[in-house]
Amino acid sequence: MPTQNLLSNIRVVLCRPSHPGNIGAAARAMKTMGLSQLFLVSPKKFPHADAEAMASGAADVLAGASVCGSLEEALSGCVLAIGTSTRQRDLQTALLTPAEAARQALSEAQGGNVAFVFGNETFGLSKEELACCQALMTIPANPEYGSLNLGAAVQVMAYELRRTALAESFAQPELDAADLADVERFYAHLEQTLIEIGFLNPASPKRLMPKLRRLFSRTRLQKEEINILRGMLSAMESCKNIRVK
Amino acid sequence: MPTQNLLSNIRVVLCRPSHPGNIGAAARAMKTMGLSQLFLVSPKKFPHADAEAMASGAADVLAGASVCGSLEEALSGCVLAIGTSTRQRDLQTALLTPAEAARQALSEAQGGNVAFVFGNETFGLSKEELACCQALMTIPANPEYGSLNLGAAVQVMAYELRRTALAESFAQPELDAADLADVERFYAHLEQTLIEIGFLNPASPKRLMPKLRRLFSRTRLQKEEINILRGMLSAMESCKNIRVK
Repeated sequence: MPTQNLLSNIRVVLCRPSHPGNIGAAARAMKTMGLSQLFLVSPKKFPHADAEAMASGAADVLAGASVCGSLEEALSGCVLAIGTSTRQRDLQTALLTPAEAARQALSEAQGGNVAFVFGNETFGLSKEELACCQALMTIPANPEYGSLNLGAAVQVMAYELRRTALAESFAQPELDAADLADVERFYAHLEQTLIEIGFLNPASPKRLMPKLRRLFSRTRLQKEEINILRGMLSAMESCKNIRVK
Repeated sequence: MPTQNLLSNIRVVLCRPSHPGNIGAAARAMKTMGLSQLFLVSPKKFPHADAEAMASGAADVLAGASVCGSLEEALSGCVLAIGTSTRQRDLQTALLTPAEAARQALSEAQGGNVAFVFGNETFGLSKEELACCQALMTIPANPEYGSLNLGAAVQVMAYELRRTALAESFAQPELDAADLADVERFYAHLEQTLIEIGFLNPASPKRLMPKLRRLFSRTRLQKEEINILRGMLSAMESCKNIRVK
């Protein structure tokens, strides 16, 4: 697939951005590097004159931005979501460098859309948002001051994507990854079933679902596997209903 | 030399920046990647509240910025100046990628300060400013819209410098490069001598000096060579004075 098409399958998702100027700066950063898919999850102020001013010649990217009510919605149609973090967290997930993240993203972009997920300017990505990502990356920064402006972080990532796309060619991804919207439907189905069979107490869910999400994020789910797993869940429910009768 | 020391020998020079917010954004971009030397040539508005707001946690970089009246002044104490351009120009000088520029800069930073020179937001670097640079780099961008915000361009270059500094080690530079202030003094001496010997007509200088600058930029001048060349110039002048007498 030509480079240009790979970049057009990259999605930038900004979660709860506070400053509309940063949305515009992100749109401009994207366009300079040939990206176009901008998704905004619950932006504080949008549309806004500051966003337009900072977007400069990238008004088209801004105008085409999709505003979503949740990260799950913004990831619908994606096969991979890579979260960005400036902080070293206590995570089981490996932390990719921008170059590694770009390589993985472009490889998988041959099979569908790949999202880079950026958190709020002050608070970064929440635990719930991180749980929607299958990989995490961090921009290596000054340990004494690593706080990149949101637009600047998008610029660095977009630059790495373009640099990598121009320099390398990509083998077909081995995985026939499921759409993340289907993965979310599987999680909802799983949670419902676990409640019905009495394994998950909705009054005291503890960390069961996040732990299961992490397990499945690590392995990544294929389309066929989603079908198998949901078949299993349906069978469990039938079984339970029969016993109740 | 440890990485941290190499980065501390990198200077960011902003020529005639129009928007003080961009100065602040550049300071923040620099600090996140471990750079600290900021030089401003004839900034339109500085100091300014917008610069401080955009600098965020990099107020120290902003406070330590040197304000200069000319690019020559800002390059004093440097052994190499790399100009940045977003446009493909009709140039004899090779256009480096950010990665190539970072590698060269860090190698030479072992012997002295190295400057990255950024032009005005709207007009870029002037011919005169370009003539002060010994190398040129461009950030590979979308051919349909390659206009990076000034702060974003500084962020990309600072990121490449840090990435390269962390990933590679650098051999000592082969060249014992002269301080650019001494190179400027040589050019002034050369021009004066060429006028005195009647080779350069100040009323119609044509492109002689820019062409000579380009020649010497390409070869790069060592400390000892500056001494030899200036010795030659002095000898020419004496010779001419004797003939006049």
